[in-house]
Amino acid sequence: MSGIVVQNIVRADTDVIDGLAHCGVATVHEAQGRTGLLASGMRPIYSGARIAGSAVTISAPPGDNWMVHVAIEQLKAGDILVIAPTSPCEDGYFGDLLATSAQARGCRGLIINAGIRDVKDLKEMQFPVWSKAVFAQGTIKASLGSVNVPVVCAGARIEAGDVIVADDDGVCVVPRANAGTVLKEAQARESNEGDKRARLAAGELGLDMYKMREKLTAMGLKYV
Amino acid sequence: MSGIVVQNIVRADTDVIDGLAHCGVATVHEAQGRTGLLASGMRPIYSGARIAGSAVTISAPPGDNWMVHVAIEQLKAGDILVIAPTSPCEDGYFGDLLATSAQARGCRGLIINAGIRDVKDLKEMQFPVWSKAVFAQGTIKASLGSVNVPVVCAGARIEAGDVIVADDDGVCVVPRANAGTVLKEAQARESNEGDKRARLAAGELGLDMYKMREKLTAMGLKYV
Amino acid sequence: MSGIVVQNIVRADTDVIDGLAHCGVATVHEAQGRTGLLASGMRPIYSGARIAGSAVTISAPPGDNWMVHVAIEQLKAGDILVIAPTSPCEDGYFGDLLATSAQARGCRGLIINAGIRDVKDLKEMQFPVWSKAVFAQGTIKASLGSVNVPVVCAGARIEAGDVIVADDDGVCVVPRANAGTVLKEAQARESNEGDKRARLAAGELGLDMYKMREKLTAMGLKYV
Amino acid sequence: MSGIVVQNIVRADTDVIDGLAHCGVATVHEAQGRTGLLASGMRPIYSGARIAGSAVTISAPPGDNWMVHVAIEQLKAGDILVIAPTSPCEDGYFGDLLATSAQARGCRGLIINAGIRDVKDLKEMQFPVWSKAVFAQGTIKASLGSVNVPVVCAGARIEAGDVIVADDDGVCVVPRANAGTVLKEAQARESNEGDKRARLAAGELGLDMYKMREKLTAMGLKYV
Amino acid sequence: MSGIVVQNIVRADTDVIDGLAHCGVATVHEAQGRTGLLASGMRPIYSGARIAGSAVTISAPPGDNWMVHVAIEQLKAGDILVIAPTSPCEDGYFGDLLATSAQARGCRGLIINAGIRDVKDLKEMQFPVWSKAVFAQGTIKASLGSVNVPVVCAGARIEAGDVIVADDDGVCVVPRANAGTVLKEAQARESNEGDKRARLAAGELGLDMYKMREKLTAMGLKYV
Amino acid sequence: MSGIVVQNIVRADTDVIDGLAHCGVATVHEAQGRTGLLASGMRPIYSGARIAGSAVTISAPPGDNWMVHVAIEQLKAGDILVIAPTSPCEDGYFGDLLATSAQARGCRGLIINAGIRDVKDLKEMQFPVWSKAVFAQGTIKASLGSVNVPVVCAGARIEAGDVIVADDDGVCVVPRANAGTVLKEAQARESNEGDKRARLAAGELGLDMYKMREKLTAMGLKYV
Repeated sequence: MSGIVVQNIVRADTDVIDGLAHCGVATVHEAQGRTGLLASGMRPIYSGARIAGSAVTISAPPGDNWMVHVAIEQLKAGDILVIAPTSPCEDGYFGDLLATSAQARGCRGLIINAGIRDVKDLKEMQFPVWSKAVFAQGTIKASLGSVNVPVVCAGARIEAGDVIVADDDGVCVVPRANAGTVLKEAQARESNEGDKRARLAAGELGLDMYKMREKLTAMGLKYV
Repeated sequence: MSGIVVQNIVRADTDVIDGLAHCGVATVHEAQGRTGLLASGMRPIYSGARIAGSAVTISAPPGDNWMVHVAIEQLKAGDILVIAPTSPCEDGYFGDLLATSAQARGCRGLIINAGIRDVKDLKEMQFPVWSKAVFAQGTIKASLGSVNVPVVCAGARIEAGDVIVADDDGVCVVPRANAGTVLKEAQARESNEGDKRARLAAGELGLDMYKMREKLTAMGLKYV
Repeated sequence: MSGIVVQNIVRADTDVIDGLAHCGVATVHEAQGRTGLLASGMRPIYSGARIAGSAVTISAPPGDNWMVHVAIEQLKAGDILVIAPTSPCEDGYFGDLLATSAQARGCRGLIINAGIRDVKDLKEMQFPVWSKAVFAQGTIKASLGSVNVPVVCAGARIEAGDVIVADDDGVCVVPRANAGTVLKEAQARESNEGDKRARLAAGELGLDMYKMREKLTAMGLKYV
Repeated sequence: MSGIVVQNIVRADTDVIDGLAHCGVATVHEAQGRTGLLASGMRPIYSGARIAGSAVTISAPPGDNWMVHVAIEQLKAGDILVIAPTSPCEDGYFGDLLATSAQARGCRGLIINAGIRDVKDLKEMQFPVWSKAVFAQGTIKASLGSVNVPVVCAGARIEAGDVIVADDDGVCVVPRANAGTVLKEAQARESNEGDKRARLAAGELGLDMYKMREKLTAMGLKYV
Repeated sequence: MSGIVVQNIVRADTDVIDGLAHCGVATVHEAQGRTGLLASGMRPIYSGARIAGSAVTISAPPGDNWMVHVAIEQLKAGDILVIAPTSPCEDGYFGDLLATSAQARGCRGLIINAGIRDVKDLKEMQFPVWSKAVFAQGTIKASLGSVNVPVVCAGARIEAGDVIVADDDGVCVVPRANAGTVLKEAQARESNEGDKRARLAAGELGLDMYKMREKLTAMGLKYV
Repeated sequence: MSGIVVQNIVRADTDVIDGLAHCGVATVHEAQGRTGLLASGMRPIYSGARIAGSAVTISAPPGDNWMVHVAIEQLKAGDILVIAPTSPCEDGYFGDLLATSAQARGCRGLIINAGIRDVKDLKEMQFPVWSKAVFAQGTIKASLGSVNVPVVCAGARIEAGDVIVADDDGVCVVPRANAGTVLKEAQARESNEGDKRARLAAGELGLDMYKMREKLTAMGLKYV
């Protein structure tokens, strides 16, 4: 079942991807019906990055980062590496050398349900990573995994070419086929939110703006 | 039992509250007999904030943030929102729109034993949050909770109007009735610590300053 | 078994220690055969510090920081305090006063498998700490522990005088007797990595640089 | 704040307590509006026990079981010990000797947000315990705590004399003043459930029995 | 995206399903290339059950068990319910009444990445459950989810009609299309293991039986 | 550093080992000054076993069980296998075939800071295991580890030939050189406890038996 590298994956449109990056994780998650979030344990190694890109997926044995080298060859500019170990692991699959190689091919960042290392270097390189752990534990190169096969990463199903959005709020995946639609919905939410934000900043209450009072009373809310 | 909003809560004196903020969590916790800390999992979403304020409490159903809107109407300048879900939850109850609304009413920050989102915006707004998780997962508005009832939040009992102190060390609650006394004790500790700090910085040992050597010997400590 | 303070511990050579600090945790860990890492839950309270020093170890009862005062007297310039509670604990053993005292004696930092407090002060003092938790919970001074005895801290065996290396990647211990050898191996890795980094940055693939293709094919890797 | 033993606590009526035991945790929790549950980490050390009793509470320092001896003197037949450490701890506060002493006074069991030991003996004695951990780690007798003061135990507020209900589903607390009312509501639920169980066992669907179909359709449920 | 009930799902052959049950989780997991395991946190509520069945999947909102009623109507004899909340949750979705209803329709058990309750009743009914938690916390019926859509449950992708195998070792999913092939492979492993077991029981070493000595020596293993 | 098998290890006297088994974990832990416990996460796969034996240690790569075969050859009657992965792992290193082989050589059980599988078979064979997880995930045989070298297992330092004691309370290690002394101390505690148990069962209070009242009063305990 493992030992497969899928070479020609389909990617979403660059404009759509960049649009999704601009909207950010929370808005995109809402825009696609509150789906697609990876587990909250996936945290950025430094704050402030907001990226989107096409997933190049890696199904990797625990503690074995050999397939990362294989996957880097498959990267195109704008891609994001997604590493899902086949059993729970927090070893450090990825450090500054792999980041240098990935960045040289235009890779925008890494999502990994395991550990990474060389945090200081990665931050200086501005190569953002969302991971389960920071752990220097070295890995080996002994077993095959697969590249660009569907994976479950931190609770979310991800296929190669799906759009990954990541920022300080975490990581969200948008199935490639839905990316355009989700972007439109996300942008609609964004323009809508600008008006709301202004009204709330001016002191208007959500209770009034969203007309909640009547429904709350009907539900039985009591003020004492 | 739920569905209640207590409207007129009593708050501690503003000077007392601000004095407690100045002392910070560790000193206040010591000053009230080492009580009142929330669990260590309650972490700030950005470092450097140090606040105190009167608790406006929310007992909320898991994954349902409706009561936050209700609670915001109850906020006065200097208050801090405290959200305690009725079962374990890390969904994102709170983001930039709610923060805008709360901040417009003078709210100083949020304590939540669940998740929040829009971290980047909250940081830019300088609206500090201490939470169990950062998680963009959307919530619904379907069930009632209560506002300004006593809650247990991250292991600590909090009543509306109690003083919340929060900084990089975590979160501490001071029962409103004790706030003045605790402040005095905290300030006494602070002035006391200045002298100690100077002596320790000059190389004096705690063993000598606190006269510990004799007691340690009596307990049987052996130097080899 | 407890109640012992070992006074005259042997330390590694200062040049070796400083050399290991320069190499950092990930490289040192690799250089000594992928051993010596403390658990990934040991996180720095602020980012950017990279230190090495000789371990002054404390075996402490849970929630009792008395022995820290005893240990500070044993510190020499360049040392690092290592605190290992005898049962799981996240209480705040250490804050700004103890840090002031330790820093006055030339201590470079603290490794503790428990909690600490006064994070803001410690950061301003540039006294780095790697800990399991930030938690203001006060501790007592009632029971003896031991100083400079062998401990297990966050999964790693540490003896007094062993070299501790700590940075944003975590914490690694190097047995004193091996420190010189490990430094040479670490430096060899470092110089070796410079060349690799340049080639990878220029677009050469790890698959080619490490001559992996043939072995991968022999293992059965299929490109589809 | 600590160092207090409240001696004459009020208890609920024995018939009410025994009635609540018969209903069990899940029913009692529902009967009081889905409140009162302790965290799910509180697990029985052996399966099959179902008890209720009046809480004799202990606020204990971490790793110090001295107050358990003090509390045992306060026990009356039908009571349940509730131990809440003042900071997170999994040390073994309680074993077969303390259980022997408590059982001699008519104590029905122990709820502890920490560790216990002598599991085999406790099981043979049929002294049920719900704990966070099984851990043999010994505790000391060095610091005061308090007995029969209000505590927060595993996320639930418990006052002395409140009714504790515990079985294989976990632990629930019923405030003493509500115990009679909650019992009536619980018994009503029980008799109601007998009929439902029979109908469901006969193949009737909840969808029909609870008349859910229309509402689900109105909400937009689609069968495909 | 939610609010969908897929009615006519395809199931694997009954003989294949029962064959997989007989082989058990560990063997089936190996037989399909070490894939398909759910996370180790999914534990049986009582020991000794070993089942297999066709998955009827539920994607449920956190803390809302309405869709369980909907799903029960879709059950056929030999099915296993699989409940995956859309965000982390340990509330008690399922108890003895739902079990009675499911069992009346021939359901063999429940897999749920959340909590359940009425453990004692479920055990008496011999209705096995593998869950993340035992927690009596009540759920509501307010929002739609979906039935028989693909879900990710405890880290594993499961589609309606896939074969679930569960025993004391945990839970494994076999994609429906592969079930026959996996069974053959599993049975081959089983018959093969009988011989190995006999030889090992007779004292033959795995080192000899698997002819490992030469390879270990070649790898550099040293006996000292 | 790895790839070493130490063949001729020294073991404690059989009578001492069996005596320690009889005393059990809690007593032995107390008898050696409250040291030697493994972390509380090490749980028995079935209840009721109480064993002691000489440690045959395995330092194993994560997810690789090759060294278990190597270690089994080193087992003598009365030994206990101790497996410590070199990084956190919950894969299933050990199942019924390995247990058959180990049992054939007189091995009394397994302590493993990782996962195991075939729980049902192991229970039927009465081969007790204390592990961090039950997880069927298969392991590989690709890298060397070491046998009978010192390891840290679940927080405790263990050397080959040390005495392991394990029962329902967890696991404790006694350094070989201390085993005789610890046994005497443990037996003294046991005989001492019999008398205490009888007096407590008769209703005497610990407060009186241990003469605690005066000291508690001196500490300031107040009865109200």
